[in-house]
Amino acid sequence: MRAARLHAYGQGLALDDVEEPTIQDPFEVIVRIGGAGLCRTDLHILEGQLEGRVEVELPYTLGHENAGWVAEVGSAVTNVGIGDPVIVHPLMSCGFCRACRAGDDMHCEESHFPGLTVDGGFAELLKTSARALVKLTPDVEPKHAAALSDAGLAAYHAVKKAALILHPGARVVVLGAGGLGHIGIQCLKVLTPAEVIVIDASPAAVELAGELGADRSLLADGTHVAAVRDLTNGGAEVVMDFVGEGSAIGDALAMLRRAGTLYAVGYGGTLHIPTIDIVSTELTVVGNLVGTYNELVELMTLAAQGRVRVHTTTYPLDAIDEAIADLRAGRLNGRGFLVP
Amino acid sequence: MRAARLHAYGQGLALDDVEEPTIQDPFEVIVRIGGAGLCRTDLHILEGQLEGRVEVELPYTLGHENAGWVAEVGSAVTNVGIGDPVIVHPLMSCGFCRACRAGDDMHCEESHFPGLTVDGGFAELLKTSARALVKLTPDVEPKHAAALSDAGLAAYHAVKKAALILHPGARVVVLGAGGLGHIGIQCLKVLTPAEVIVIDASPAAVELAGELGADRSLLADGTHVAAVRDLTNGGAEVVMDFVGEGSAIGDALAMLRRAGTLYAVGYGGTLHIPTIDIVSTELTVVGNLVGTYNELVELMTLAAQGRVRVHTTTYPLDAIDEAIADLRAGRLNGRGFLVP
Amino acid sequence: MRAARLHAYGQGLALDDVEEPTIQDPFEVIVRIGGAGLCRTDLHILEGQLEGRVEVELPYTLGHENAGWVAEVGSAVTNVGIGDPVIVHPLMSCGFCRACRAGDDMHCEESHFPGLTVDGGFAELLKTSARALVKLTPDVEPKHAAALSDAGLAAYHAVKKAALILHPGARVVVLGAGGLGHIGIQCLKVLTPAEVIVIDASPAAVELAGELGADRSLLADGTHVAAVRDLTNGGAEVVMDFVGEGSAIGDALAMLRRAGTLYAVGYGGTLHIPTIDIVSTELTVVGNLVGTYNELVELMTLAAQGRVRVHTTTYPLDAIDEAIADLRAGRLNGRGFLVP
Amino acid sequence: MRAARLHAYGQGLALDDVEEPTIQDPFEVIVRIGGAGLCRTDLHILEGQLEGRVEVELPYTLGHENAGWVAEVGSAVTNVGIGDPVIVHPLMSCGFCRACRAGDDMHCEESHFPGLTVDGGFAELLKTSARALVKLTPDVEPKHAAALSDAGLAAYHAVKKAALILHPGARVVVLGAGGLGHIGIQCLKVLTPAEVIVIDASPAAVELAGELGADRSLLADGTHVAAVRDLTNGGAEVVMDFVGEGSAIGDALAMLRRAGTLYAVGYGGTLHIPTIDIVSTELTVVGNLVGTYNELVELMTLAAQGRVRVHTTTYPLDAIDEAIADLRAGRLNGRGFLVP
Repeated sequence: MRAARLHAYGQGLALDDVEEPTIQDPFEVIVRIGGAGLCRTDLHILEGQLEGRVEVELPYTLGHENAGWVAEVGSAVTNVGIGDPVIVHPLMSCGFCRACRAGDDMHCEESHFPGLTVDGGFAELLKTSARALVKLTPDVEPKHAAALSDAGLAAYHAVKKAALILHPGARVVVLGAGGLGHIGIQCLKVLTPAEVIVIDASPAAVELAGELGADRSLLADGTHVAAVRDLTNGGAEVVMDFVGEGSAIGDALAMLRRAGTLYAVGYGGTLHIPTIDIVSTELTVVGNLVGTYNELVELMTLAAQGRVRVHTTTYPLDAIDEAIADLRAGRLNGRGFLVP
Repeated sequence: MRAARLHAYGQGLALDDVEEPTIQDPFEVIVRIGGAGLCRTDLHILEGQLEGRVEVELPYTLGHENAGWVAEVGSAVTNVGIGDPVIVHPLMSCGFCRACRAGDDMHCEESHFPGLTVDGGFAELLKTSARALVKLTPDVEPKHAAALSDAGLAAYHAVKKAALILHPGARVVVLGAGGLGHIGIQCLKVLTPAEVIVIDASPAAVELAGELGADRSLLADGTHVAAVRDLTNGGAEVVMDFVGEGSAIGDALAMLRRAGTLYAVGYGGTLHIPTIDIVSTELTVVGNLVGTYNELVELMTLAAQGRVRVHTTTYPLDAIDEAIADLRAGRLNGRGFLVP
Repeated sequence: MRAARLHAYGQGLALDDVEEPTIQDPFEVIVRIGGAGLCRTDLHILEGQLEGRVEVELPYTLGHENAGWVAEVGSAVTNVGIGDPVIVHPLMSCGFCRACRAGDDMHCEESHFPGLTVDGGFAELLKTSARALVKLTPDVEPKHAAALSDAGLAAYHAVKKAALILHPGARVVVLGAGGLGHIGIQCLKVLTPAEVIVIDASPAAVELAGELGADRSLLADGTHVAAVRDLTNGGAEVVMDFVGEGSAIGDALAMLRRAGTLYAVGYGGTLHIPTIDIVSTELTVVGNLVGTYNELVELMTLAAQGRVRVHTTTYPLDAIDEAIADLRAGRLNGRGFLVP
Repeated sequence: MRAARLHAYGQGLALDDVEEPTIQDPFEVIVRIGGAGLCRTDLHILEGQLEGRVEVELPYTLGHENAGWVAEVGSAVTNVGIGDPVIVHPLMSCGFCRACRAGDDMHCEESHFPGLTVDGGFAELLKTSARALVKLTPDVEPKHAAALSDAGLAAYHAVKKAALILHPGARVVVLGAGGLGHIGIQCLKVLTPAEVIVIDASPAAVELAGELGADRSLLADGTHVAAVRDLTNGGAEVVMDFVGEGSAIGDALAMLRRAGTLYAVGYGGTLHIPTIDIVSTELTVVGNLVGTYNELVELMTLAAQGRVRVHTTTYPLDAIDEAIADLRAGRLNGRGFLVP
């Protein structure tokens, strides 16, 4: 089968002919890809940011945001059957470590992360484990669901934490209304009663945010930090940073009020803050990675109810270079994904 | 009366003769100081770190960690009476804003902070509000309690948050067994079942930590980060940083395991971390400032039960320069405090 | 002034001429009543259910659900001024006990409860304390707000607890869409992503529930327990019982699934359950009384945003007997309230 | 092999010769029993209390509290190996339902409960699943650990919930210092800073409670409710009812203060309470069943550290009748268990 593979950091992906994956353990499942989302993490991998942070042998197939149909199951699999439409939780978790036994799949001590540490979904077939699969209802097509498995899940995961502190009258600033953020906005509107203020550098994204229910939506034009501080009477209770690069990080901190919380989802830059500013106002910074299996189920419920919709741009697998270029240039509206 | 006052940043304190404070509002109380703790924050004030961060008119009297006896009460005060021994919560909070109505005195929107924003306790008399006072039981003398009002409270406040995630088998690293940390260690042993690992640069503090119940106590000799990572099989669930300066901050991050939480209590340096490292392991950083009124009551309960003890060095108010020099040089064992 | 007062349990209220209240403490406030809600608790008081449970000297004025305008303030009051439109939190809390310092006004150890333990709002003027008042924005008129101060607050308080466990896909059953329940339904839709199933014995209330956003709304016709168990595949995660009398309590338990939680808000009957049924399925039963001051502020925010609306029937104070009769007979749509 | 089996409710157990269990699924494990605890639930089963509440085919082997050594493993088992000493979590959970994916093994939708719904551990061999096993360290012998797998786990599970609300100065009343309660007391002392008050009808249990660290320990002699209300100035913040029968339930409610929480662990009787008493003081009643897998790991950590010790009386499997008679008569000190 064909697969878009990374041969060396700093280069693009190659469309290689590779062998189809085969079942080796009783709980493995092979999924025929219906759609594979494209993520800023893919750019960060190409740039080499994950080198040394994750263990993986090159070349390998990227694509960590997948949905499709079950093609083959191991001998002990009972939760899905061949032909079932499924969305794929990003992690293959062991089910036995403390994190797994608490439901925190993203902290499994023996996990694999297809697309990061083993072959991913920029291909016709993907091997994962039974524990990673959520069956889709007929309301949700695999190719539309794919972007929910990582971007959507990470946004939902962060919003679910934030919901605990977002009361009526509280304000939450969303930095970035792109692939992650545009789902985050919808989750915030469904899960919390807070006022949602969105900042993006792209006028199209600002407009999209408004359509998705943002109470306010502002262009990141250099006046936005002051504008938010003004709107919020000194700062927001919560900032969700779906960018994590460049000036966004400093902006995020500057838009928080006392006792505020920053949920970091996007990454790429550096957080730099005097400890006196953390302590004297009791700030909290919370990292967010993927989400739990149950959170993915919950998000798919919202998708089936039509309360969370993904805005997507589709590319055939062959157009991987173009897709990556569009993502890098900020030309994507919503989330881009590949269909083999 | 005499008071140790700051006339200009970058200088020492002057022992001035000043007028005694007088009651002006029905809820004000004047406390005769029995002991006033000396804090690294006092050093940070002298250094000018708080200039621009807090509003205060110079000259003013330092001392934000106070205990003593009620000397005079406003017309509406009913919770304490003249002669009562009391410990003084650091903040004069308004009682009406959202933070106050939630119990978060440290985020009061109309607060005063004696010793930081108005005259403090390095004097014979201190003016505060009825809301700030906790009556002492006969088991606890004001001069021994003083250090619990800020150092103790901040440590307790941070430990109380950490207790929510510290299960049997979890490990918590305490950075710094000085004024704050030596109380934090005791609170951790009383409130949590976790294994407590203490790091300090002073052999005396390392020894004190052991006496206070630390399960392990290590000298910060450059091998300590590796030692902790080894002891904890890759990192601790929680690090409590009572230092917040120099290499402690980087050490703290390096000693955390996946999904770990850093509670920042000490300050003075800068936190510098790539967002990828926050996100990819889901770290949380939690600032801690003072604590709530109820937490101060709880801490005084522990003190009365003999489960938290403060190690102190006493100085007369006249010896303020010597006391500050000892604090700066790290020559204090436990907490220093002044007795007028 | 005129006031509707209780002279003896088991009788109706008398419209007496009484003296106007006067300010005696620096934090007292007198409110000119704009509207005073009528509550099943008023029926329970008349029936004598609270005799022995609350301390009060007869005769006294009922009415514990009040809004109006500030008429007079004590010398130390700064949070409201004469003429301000206000809603009145049901409790006069002390501000100093542990409960008050944690924000739990409803558990104040030194509280008064106008309408239950001291004179209430079925009169032209009401005396309360500064701590009980929330200023209304111009979007909300006092006479429409009154019902939110107790019925609304209790419903909101319970919903806020339930929101912590109501994820997308979870089901919450609301028993009773009357004075309390019709507000609870709206709060559930704003604060949670759960599916809301409403049960009421009145077809009009069932219809109102649907208009207010209930996902399902069923008549309590004897088949409703089975219907809910069917709809929820064995029981709901949460049941909110706004009735608390008659068969509702048993129905509530029968509609819960394993690990389910029953929020009790209405009262009057008796909960009767073998401990094996609590233990073997890990049920939780949570009592709910009034709510916190901050919760009242949050609810008023929702009211000002038009996201929570009270359906009311207005009576002049003179028509108190008719109002009580209508409430007792279940003839009220939404909440009844009195305007002096 | 020999097994103590129930042939009909209302009768004793028969010592039958039965076939040894065999592995049928890849994740099954057979454990050679080192000790099997005897529980009041066994009495309740004999009495028929669980008839209709659990599905089981008679005759079957009782014994739901087991520890021993791994004797045989299914083909996919990797977390334990033959010969490993293990404690057995009471439930065989599926690992795939929402409850399992959240770590709530006790609410698994496809579980088996050896000793309740399938053959248990009053035998030489027990079949369970890999997910149920926690490896023992050399510090803990299987025969001493057995009682921790259900009695201990249930007590720990309830204490862990209670720990969230037990601050310094709070009081927790433990009803019953028998098989469950004597472990609960130790867990409370390790996990919380609260004052522990123990009530038991047996002078020996009262004495044991004191030895285990109870701050107060009182005989249930009819004056105990008044004594506790006096000691606690009106009632305790928390009551943990390890009895759940007879007068204990009413006592439990009578010993709670406003906003108090009752943790129900023991069962057999009936909770009977007017809803006004739940609502007007905001009581919470929390059922407790077994505990999570991770909680069992945590409890074994405490056992290995010597901080939780089980007091046991040992019987050979042959003496099952005598053991049951002793349990029924309240003659057991601590927990009874059988060794095949």
